[in-house]
Amino acid sequence: MEMQIIRFPDPKDFDRLLARPVIDKVTLESDVRKILEAVKAEGDEAVRRFTLSLDKISSPVIQIGEEDFIRAEKNISEELKASMKLAKDNVEKFHRTQRELPQEIEIQKGVTCWRKSIAIERVGLYIPGGSAPLFSTVLMLGVPAAIAGCKEIILCTPPSKDGLINPAILYAARLVGIKKVFCIGGAQAIGAMAYGTKTVPRVYKIFGPGNQYVTAAKKLVNADGVSIDMPAGPSELAILADRFCVPAFVAADLLSQAEHGTDSQVILVSDEEEIISCVNSELKSQLELLPRKDIAAKALQNSKVFLVGSMEDGMNLINAYAPEHLILACKDSDKLAEKVVNAGSVFLGNYSCESAGDYASGTNHTLPTNGFARAYSGVSLDSFLKKVTFQRLTEEGLMEIGKAIEIMAEAEGLQAHKNAVSIRLKKS
Amino acid sequence: MEMQIIRFPDPKDFDRLLARPVIDKVTLESDVRKILEAVKAEGDEAVRRFTLSLDKISSPVIQIGEEDFIRAEKNISEELKASMKLAKDNVEKFHRTQRELPQEIEIQKGVTCWRKSIAIERVGLYIPGGSAPLFSTVLMLGVPAAIAGCKEIILCTPPSKDGLINPAILYAARLVGIKKVFCIGGAQAIGAMAYGTKTVPRVYKIFGPGNQYVTAAKKLVNADGVSIDMPAGPSELAILADRFCVPAFVAADLLSQAEHGTDSQVILVSDEEEIISCVNSELKSQLELLPRKDIAAKALQNSKVFLVGSMEDGMNLINAYAPEHLILACKDSDKLAEKVVNAGSVFLGNYSCESAGDYASGTNHTLPTNGFARAYSGVSLDSFLKKVTFQRLTEEGLMEIGKAIEIMAEAEGLQAHKNAVSIRLKKS
Repeated sequence: MEMQIIRFPDPKDFDRLLARPVIDKVTLESDVRKILEAVKAEGDEAVRRFTLSLDKISSPVIQIGEEDFIRAEKNISEELKASMKLAKDNVEKFHRTQRELPQEIEIQKGVTCWRKSIAIERVGLYIPGGSAPLFSTVLMLGVPAAIAGCKEIILCTPPSKDGLINPAILYAARLVGIKKVFCIGGAQAIGAMAYGTKTVPRVYKIFGPGNQYVTAAKKLVNADGVSIDMPAGPSELAILADRFCVPAFVAADLLSQAEHGTDSQVILVSDEEEIISCVNSELKSQLELLPRKDIAAKALQNSKVFLVGSMEDGMNLINAYAPEHLILACKDSDKLAEKVVNAGSVFLGNYSCESAGDYASGTNHTLPTNGFARAYSGVSLDSFLKKVTFQRLTEEGLMEIGKAIEIMAEAEGLQAHKNAVSIRLKKS
Repeated sequence: MEMQIIRFPDPKDFDRLLARPVIDKVTLESDVRKILEAVKAEGDEAVRRFTLSLDKISSPVIQIGEEDFIRAEKNISEELKASMKLAKDNVEKFHRTQRELPQEIEIQKGVTCWRKSIAIERVGLYIPGGSAPLFSTVLMLGVPAAIAGCKEIILCTPPSKDGLINPAILYAARLVGIKKVFCIGGAQAIGAMAYGTKTVPRVYKIFGPGNQYVTAAKKLVNADGVSIDMPAGPSELAILADRFCVPAFVAADLLSQAEHGTDSQVILVSDEEEIISCVNSELKSQLELLPRKDIAAKALQNSKVFLVGSMEDGMNLINAYAPEHLILACKDSDKLAEKVVNAGSVFLGNYSCESAGDYASGTNHTLPTNGFARAYSGVSLDSFLKKVTFQRLTEEGLMEIGKAIEIMAEAEGLQAHKNAVSIRLKKS
């Protein structure tokens, strides 16, 4: 296992060198479309059928009952509960700072405008099951939804082999105040939330990670008018490291990303050949000790190391890549942070490991992958709000700007737009 | 011409009564997909070909030259220039209030987080041509793009029959500082901006209204990873009116929306039968005087009037409909405004006509239609920014939250995530 080293890349080659692997989704999409159409037409009946056939659950129960939540709380350790509470508190603290109060501004005399943040009434969260029960994502999505004041927050997550839901997911759901949890996975869960069934309420926006079926389903319901958090892709980490870094820490961070999946991508950028070889040898020894070492080793094969002439060159390369996570393990991390243009979340210095943001520092871990950081933000309080604008014009206010409106409406050939002003000014 | 009146609708019937007309887009999408693929593969060559065949321009010029801008400035009246400057100033004033400065917060001792608004580097604006040259949309999109600090702001707009661009569009572009304007329309313009050609730079996010081809193209490039402002649909206005309203004003506002297109939708909600009949007779007489009366009359046929038992019932109906524009022509418009949940932009009182917000009050006129106001915001400064989160942990900070991270990572089965913390805490 050795990461591919590229020395002094030419900016002209950035696009090619930094290209993400392309996944063929055409066949997948037609399967997913069929599932969505069935759920839309048949509701719970279709959901039950897919849970039987795809999750191999013999007697599926769609909605989680109160007794399951009580059992879940009993089944997890006190130290895990305390850890989740600490994480929840920190995520809450950070996301509360994102609240914006309406601020009225008098644009001209008698023309007052403001905007108000209003919670999306109904949101749905999808939490993957499988090998890793991502209860941390329940906190990352549920906390801002609760702060925003969304009235209906529902959660879907697939059953494990025994037909149950991981207790940590249920505990996290209750911790953030989610009352309705449904044991549904895959595209059928996305369909149920997008179109509603007798049991599952329809929502206006769907959040959360998932496998290729979930991702394809979110994309399809989005094209059908249901809002989604952001387009998805495999998780990524870029690290910019100089002499100031600790190679063992850098290697540990690269591995923490690589263990997510064989399609995870990690990128190391450094201005020191020596740092690169130290990190590489640390990678080898640390990898051996990991339970998910096969996954991590495969992910490292897709990954790249860049030797650059200066930290500035390195920063340019990283902005061209637009990583989901970026660690600045360098002396001038504060200064370099100011040069970040394209990234989801940035970690400064030797003690800001990505794991901190994944779980407990307060920032959100639902972030734009696949270069989407060029145009998309990660999940924040804003993701659960709409910003509605308001305006009040007095008679005097309309007199101030009315003439300009009449002239522009006329020039655009919209006489009735003009008339809505003229009829008012005539009365004055 | 008489709008359909529905008296005392049952909330159970809201979904059916308020449903928007559904447009079949399947055949359209396959045509548009072909155009996009050709532009992606052949670049300028394909753009030229489609301009020849679809816009019927014999010798298409893709990029607008300096002399065209100079000619445009000469060709429009001083009063239109002054009106556009007033509008630009007001839009600028309002959108400047939307700026957010980074605010550092110490979550726990040694754990500091903040988020920073960073401009999307490259954005593309689409401005429709045709019967109404929408230069006002150039202001609505170009002003926030400039405030955000987007480095590359390009604009595409279709040629008129003589192969030229409306001078007001060119003047507006220069007014907001846009240097690169391309004379390309339809799906080929969206493709050129999404994938880039030799002449047209690739952008990361595409904004602006358009016909069904443009809308379908935006949807398709969005599914391909290019961000767009929002999904589109026909323009809409709902008015909630009580005894306090001026029926002639209400009728003028309904018509100003109805003239946009035959598929525009207007909805009037009132608690007074008398108001409804006064508005209806005003509609008849005002309609006769409009140059676009055929369009407006057709749009009114799709539209509805609701008689409700109380203003509260009316507000519930409107929140269920989620209109793009909402006028509160009522006595307690301030109080009612507080009950708005789903709307794009809200106009309070008798002198806040929709035209004001369309042109010059300062609020943005690019707003969510088709019920999207349930989950989407209108265009604002935010639309041109990404909000990137940052964090710095000191050694002490990691000690504060490290244990919780280790416990949660382990519970999620992610040993390497845990190890990234453990290796640092061991060194301490």
